[in-house]
Amino acid sequence: MSELGEKTRRYIARVAGLVDGYIYARVHGEPPVLYDAALHLIRAGGKRLRPVVVLAAAEALGAEAERALPFAAAVELVHNFTLVHDDIMDRDEMRRGVPTVHKLWGEPMAIIAGDLLFSKAFEVLLDAVDKGVPPARVVEAARRLASASSTVAEGQAMDMMFEEEEDVDVDDYLKMIYKKTGALFEAAAVLGGLAATDDDKILSSLAVYGKSLGVAFQIRDDILGLVGEEKELGKPVLSDIREGKKTLLVIYALSHLDEEAKEKLRSIIGKRDASREELEEAAELIKRSGALEYAEKLAEEYSSQAVNALSVLPRNEYREILEELARFAVRRSK
Amino acid sequence: MSELGEKTRRYIARVAGLVDGYIYARVHGEPPVLYDAALHLIRAGGKRLRPVVVLAAAEALGAEAERALPFAAAVELVHNFTLVHDDIMDRDEMRRGVPTVHKLWGEPMAIIAGDLLFSKAFEVLLDAVDKGVPPARVVEAARRLASASSTVAEGQAMDMMFEEEEDVDVDDYLKMIYKKTGALFEAAAVLGGLAATDDDKILSSLAVYGKSLGVAFQIRDDILGLVGEEKELGKPVLSDIREGKKTLLVIYALSHLDEEAKEKLRSIIGKRDASREELEEAAELIKRSGALEYAEKLAEEYSSQAVNALSVLPRNEYREILEELARFAVRRSK
Repeated sequence: MSELGEKTRRYIARVAGLVDGYIYARVHGEPPVLYDAALHLIRAGGKRLRPVVVLAAAEALGAEAERALPFAAAVELVHNFTLVHDDIMDRDEMRRGVPTVHKLWGEPMAIIAGDLLFSKAFEVLLDAVDKGVPPARVVEAARRLASASSTVAEGQAMDMMFEEEEDVDVDDYLKMIYKKTGALFEAAAVLGGLAATDDDKILSSLAVYGKSLGVAFQIRDDILGLVGEEKELGKPVLSDIREGKKTLLVIYALSHLDEEAKEKLRSIIGKRDASREELEEAAELIKRSGALEYAEKLAEEYSSQAVNALSVLPRNEYREILEELARFAVRRSK
Repeated sequence: MSELGEKTRRYIARVAGLVDGYIYARVHGEPPVLYDAALHLIRAGGKRLRPVVVLAAAEALGAEAERALPFAAAVELVHNFTLVHDDIMDRDEMRRGVPTVHKLWGEPMAIIAGDLLFSKAFEVLLDAVDKGVPPARVVEAARRLASASSTVAEGQAMDMMFEEEEDVDVDDYLKMIYKKTGALFEAAAVLGGLAATDDDKILSSLAVYGKSLGVAFQIRDDILGLVGEEKELGKPVLSDIREGKKTLLVIYALSHLDEEAKEKLRSIIGKRDASREELEEAAELIKRSGALEYAEKLAEEYSSQAVNALSVLPRNEYREILEELARFAVRRSK
């Protein structure tokens, strides 16, 4: 993450240490194989961006990191739960540079491991009462996380259904990625706020920040799925094309290419046994349509929205970190 | 459920109406196919025993049913979430007389549908603050439900691992079914209590009631898996044998039959392509071992423990319903 400034990188490392420590302390039990499967992706790394959003929002508003830690750990657990189940549904074999959970432990164990991460997320979130967060605010935080999790499920279902649909447009796509990615970032920002305050105006602005950041982040993900480096990403490039994902780039290309190019592209998208050459050809067609420039511009708009939403927060180093994250979301290479 | 008295049957019908109404009012959204998949098993019926435990415990302690309704609906949602995922893992094709969710919508949609039921369970539980349950007690209820859900995941993992293990004993089995079934009944009883009180002695006794009821219930399930009527159960009899489930009956038979019979039984258990005749032969061997009588006696003991734990509750019609449920658990034919 060389695009980030030194201060932010140090903050991310601090948060990762705190959150990982908290998760490892709270998530253990029997049978050990279940817990190994559940913690596998967390141990494999990951950027811990959602916990950073939780803690930076809390600290920007003057709360102790310790107080918001259960919320940060809970959001990261929900994120990892969705990854474990997503990988099963997409039949992905690699994630964060390691084999996926179902690849190593089989589908049944991967399903339960995901379920366990989800229930542990709520166990951990509710620890916040022991850290002095008032019960009514802990209830509100739990409601936001539960509701975001339902929204993520809706987004996953939409994403899956889009693979079979011909006429997905940009609005459908934006709604889907808000649900699939934006909603959990939104909850992360609001939960951080709830560790410090119940001021509606601040919480609403944090919601806009998180939502916009998440959408910007996901658009960048689509871009990296086309032009990213396999080694940096820890997963195969162009697999979105093979899986028939309706990414923003694909949607744009399908409505801007000439008929012949469009037909060619359509014949490769979703072709499970597509050759490397075919995938490269599809990528070329997408690039030729101007989709990359379009996606980059749209991501920039969401990134700016996120930064602007932070104006209600006091100016301090934590707000700066949140701002930098929003700018980083659209520039990152992994 | 002809074994139950008229009054209890009427109470169960009332609870089912309340809980189903509450669930349908709270669980809807887009895409509709996801919600259809998620509600499929709930629409197919089921006994709603866990919500009955929640509401009867609450009403026995003087709380309004309305106040405990979010807890009752939440527990039923968690139960159905575990069924949807369990059916995928066990590759079961029928449940409650209808095809299972993954059979109708495919595995990916069934995984998400289960996840959605789980997040909706927490959304619904947290509604209790709007019904006047104090936030601190709602937090406690959510903690109990989250912790029980983690325990269920542990139980499912154990159950799955037992299929591959040779030397599962009765203690292992009882630990597994406490986790897989007892823990959620335990949470149901405690959540009902929390709608009315935070008296530790009462909550602990309710925990013992729920736990013992759940274990008695699961032992009866194992018995019905061997001697039940397919039509009444809504799922195939003897499928436990085909799937290699280490039920109490199988464990008992494997340690009480002579060597020859044991070898025969072992050769059929877990044989996915076993013929009807082979399954019947395995069932005969299990019966010959005395396993049925043993299991019935053990279930009776848990049932009595459950009834005894209720002595801390005031004597009233709701307590009587809880008592009758505990007796019904070991006599039911479906």
